[in-house]
Amino acid sequence: MQFTVKQIADALGASAEGSTGLTILRAAEPGDAGPTDLAMAMSPKYAQALAQGTARAAVVWEGADWKELGLEAAIFVPRPRMAMAGITAMLDRGQGVEPGVHPSAVVDPTAEIGDDVSIGPLCVIGPRARIGAGSVLGAHCVVGMDASLGENALLREMVSIGARARIGDRFIAQPGARIGGDGFSFVTPEVSDVENVRKTMGDKGDAKAQSWLRIHSLGAVEIGDDVELGSNCTIDNGTIRNTVIGSGTKLDNLVHVGHNTRVGRDCLLCGQTGVSGSVEIGNNVVLGGQTGVVDNIFIGDGAISGGGTKILSNVPAGRVIMGYPAVKMESHTDMYKAQRRLPRIARDVEALKKAVFKQPPSD
Amino acid sequence: MQFTVKQIADALGASAEGSTGLTILRAAEPGDAGPTDLAMAMSPKYAQALAQGTARAAVVWEGADWKELGLEAAIFVPRPRMAMAGITAMLDRGQGVEPGVHPSAVVDPTAEIGDDVSIGPLCVIGPRARIGAGSVLGAHCVVGMDASLGENALLREMVSIGARARIGDRFIAQPGARIGGDGFSFVTPEVSDVENVRKTMGDKGDAKAQSWLRIHSLGAVEIGDDVELGSNCTIDNGTIRNTVIGSGTKLDNLVHVGHNTRVGRDCLLCGQTGVSGSVEIGNNVVLGGQTGVVDNIFIGDGAISGGGTKILSNVPAGRVIMGYPAVKMESHTDMYKAQRRLPRIARDVEALKKAVFKQPPSD
Amino acid sequence: MQFTVKQIADALGASAEGSTGLTILRAAEPGDAGPTDLAMAMSPKYAQALAQGTARAAVVWEGADWKELGLEAAIFVPRPRMAMAGITAMLDRGQGVEPGVHPSAVVDPTAEIGDDVSIGPLCVIGPRARIGAGSVLGAHCVVGMDASLGENALLREMVSIGARARIGDRFIAQPGARIGGDGFSFVTPEVSDVENVRKTMGDKGDAKAQSWLRIHSLGAVEIGDDVELGSNCTIDNGTIRNTVIGSGTKLDNLVHVGHNTRVGRDCLLCGQTGVSGSVEIGNNVVLGGQTGVVDNIFIGDGAISGGGTKILSNVPAGRVIMGYPAVKMESHTDMYKAQRRLPRIARDVEALKKAVFKQPPSD
Repeated sequence: MQFTVKQIADALGASAEGSTGLTILRAAEPGDAGPTDLAMAMSPKYAQALAQGTARAAVVWEGADWKELGLEAAIFVPRPRMAMAGITAMLDRGQGVEPGVHPSAVVDPTAEIGDDVSIGPLCVIGPRARIGAGSVLGAHCVVGMDASLGENALLREMVSIGARARIGDRFIAQPGARIGGDGFSFVTPEVSDVENVRKTMGDKGDAKAQSWLRIHSLGAVEIGDDVELGSNCTIDNGTIRNTVIGSGTKLDNLVHVGHNTRVGRDCLLCGQTGVSGSVEIGNNVVLGGQTGVVDNIFIGDGAISGGGTKILSNVPAGRVIMGYPAVKMESHTDMYKAQRRLPRIARDVEALKKAVFKQPPSD
Repeated sequence: MQFTVKQIADALGASAEGSTGLTILRAAEPGDAGPTDLAMAMSPKYAQALAQGTARAAVVWEGADWKELGLEAAIFVPRPRMAMAGITAMLDRGQGVEPGVHPSAVVDPTAEIGDDVSIGPLCVIGPRARIGAGSVLGAHCVVGMDASLGENALLREMVSIGARARIGDRFIAQPGARIGGDGFSFVTPEVSDVENVRKTMGDKGDAKAQSWLRIHSLGAVEIGDDVELGSNCTIDNGTIRNTVIGSGTKLDNLVHVGHNTRVGRDCLLCGQTGVSGSVEIGNNVVLGGQTGVVDNIFIGDGAISGGGTKILSNVPAGRVIMGYPAVKMESHTDMYKAQRRLPRIARDVEALKKAVFKQPPSD
Repeated sequence: MQFTVKQIADALGASAEGSTGLTILRAAEPGDAGPTDLAMAMSPKYAQALAQGTARAAVVWEGADWKELGLEAAIFVPRPRMAMAGITAMLDRGQGVEPGVHPSAVVDPTAEIGDDVSIGPLCVIGPRARIGAGSVLGAHCVVGMDASLGENALLREMVSIGARARIGDRFIAQPGARIGGDGFSFVTPEVSDVENVRKTMGDKGDAKAQSWLRIHSLGAVEIGDDVELGSNCTIDNGTIRNTVIGSGTKLDNLVHVGHNTRVGRDCLLCGQTGVSGSVEIGNNVVLGGQTGVVDNIFIGDGAISGGGTKILSNVPAGRVIMGYPAVKMESHTDMYKAQRRLPRIARDVEALKKAVFKQPPSD
């Protein structure tokens, strides 16, 4: 895989100057870049690192004096992260899955495999499963009975897709992603402690010890187009209806989405976020890393949570939240500042009580 | 798989009215239900949705006027979630693992496979492993050397069970569950910073930088009857004794149970909960999603934690807790309310100081 | 595998007394120990349990009267956890992977397999991958194209290593560990809500709803010597440079390390800890269970975080921290104590206001 500087600039719709016929094999950080690398020097803070490397070509910030920086060619980009999307897509060397169905794969004769599909070693494709044209499955993937996968999917190794899952086009799943485990749904014969606590917010009542009966998951998982799932993340089957992930939504590593939950379009669920069952999440929602969401609530369009937020009640559209329990980010900042001053406030109150009520400190 | 309305009602021990000979193929949400579906309309709030669907039969709340709702047959249930357990068990279509041992599976000749066992494609069953009668193993499962699995187990795809694990009857494991990884247990040649901090709660002392030596896990994992594990959850081997999960206990997705820990009977550990090593958890304990439990403590029978709780010290039986660090749920609510008022309290204290001590605000 | 008491004592560099020729087959907890077990009775609190078991030999605390404890032989250790490292290494029975390459494994002809390597059933070794001498790979491992693994690696079942990963000697990975998934890195064509929030800490501005474009991971994962990864943990590829895990560092189960992050030497990342992208972590850092680390910060050498800490800003070397957001552990303790007294402080302030300002309570 190799490109000229000009080819890369053209693909980005960016302008280039200098020896734009130079050949590029790789992208590199400015300080590590060699003569066939394209140095990623998208802000002035990289100027010094560029001098340490031996790059001849670089992507630079607007207005950079590329000759002064010792370069022979430069590509100018107005929005660096956006350029990264284009450049990295061009230079991605992939995982090397061979074209065609590997002879060690176990493919049910009733499965429908589209054109130009690559199926890696030791994959298992179940009865009546459908794999869309142009899809690539890494080693050790399992696609369950009656599941369907759209066109141009990319499954890394060891991804599993349960029976009856329906997945759109251009799906990407990182290693170990789990689609369609059964939901975590149990019931006790009589009202349980947990039901009492939820009703009263604290009082267990006198429910007796009981065992749990399983509610099976009859629903499946339904995923739109352009969805990506991180390594070892898990999406559970719905109970009666399907669990739904909307088009354009991306889940990071170790994210958990419970049964019946519906996530909208173009959301980001960052690392280790956990969403309980029967949650309704709107479009363009961003949940920071390790966010937790209690069951049976909704989160409105465009809401954003900071890392570590625990969301215990409904969130209106557009709200920016943080904390445990979640509050508006401004409130969180105010509360936190006051909390840091709290030990001193406590001392002040004791002094005031002494002065006003002539009473001794209480402890 | 199909049933009449009467067959379903009888299996639930529930009463049915109307055309109870109607054939049911599937369960459905009221608004999605078609003429061969059983609509799950277990509370009055579903009345309107029922009218949108075309269900002829439904499970309804006690006292519902089913004819008025446009139904031809109805099943009456007093405790809806309990009925869900029975109905979903009847209508579960499963994952379609074929009977018998798939020819691609690698089964050690010394393994003991019970009657009517299904072993999916590309499973690996180690030396002297035992699989109880009636068990079903999905594709890509690994059962280690000398491990034993009771009767009627159901392993979804890609479940791994380490050497010497002992598991009871009716075990269920969702995709990617890991039983018997080695415990996370390391030691430094001399006293480490972490040991100092734990002793003094804050002072590191002057321990020097050291490398970690591994304590191997000689114990295994021991699991009772009727246990279920969620997708990608992990239970570690014990160091000398076994790590134990009691009968009837259920673990959700991405739950972690550390080495030597003993979990009692009929507990629920919800999504992404993490329990450190050497913890003793009683019976009927419920830990909400993303609960964390520090090592070497106990949690008494019937304790319940809210989502996101971090448990840093022993919890008495029956206690309902929440927060970081965990406190009684009532205390948490009180503390939280006061905390929200804290910025105003801070201002009040400044005003009081000014009035009482005639001093200027401190910042 | 069997040893005499003397052989074990010699291996530990410890002194032994009594019938040191006794044969030991296993280690056991004092109360469970039988006549061929070595009881682990390393502190006086085990004296009573020893009497319940039938051990003839034990590892005991310094100064223990072993004859009085009913033993025939005893090994004396000054630092018990350190002795555990040596004893458990000797008595570890392992997972029983057969020597050589299992015939069901799919090994690319261009892969380089070192001497005395064991490759378990159904492993997949990609083009030009290198496996160092003495390494053991459990069933169902995948080693990607151009990846290299040093000498004496131990991979448990179902470990996956992505293309181009470089791993040092004596590497250990527990079941389901994922190395080299792609990083979670997306960009919107125009400035997004999240970028606005980060800049202003709370104000979303008026960014419109947009879809996410993928930034591919061109970098890989680079791991030093003597590293161990827990079950189902995940380390992502870097974007341009590599994600790095330093020598001697250990990751527990379900830990997540994001793209570009560099973790130093001899760190411990405990269960379910999540580190975002582009974080710099020094040497000898210990992050307690469920710690979260925001992206683009640094954590200095020797820093320690308590369980559940959410680290939202840089941490200086040697700092001991806790809380959400993280503060010094002493501050956390002070804040927490004051917080518990807060409901009473609130009542006191109301009383003071009434007395000083003659005003009625505000709510």
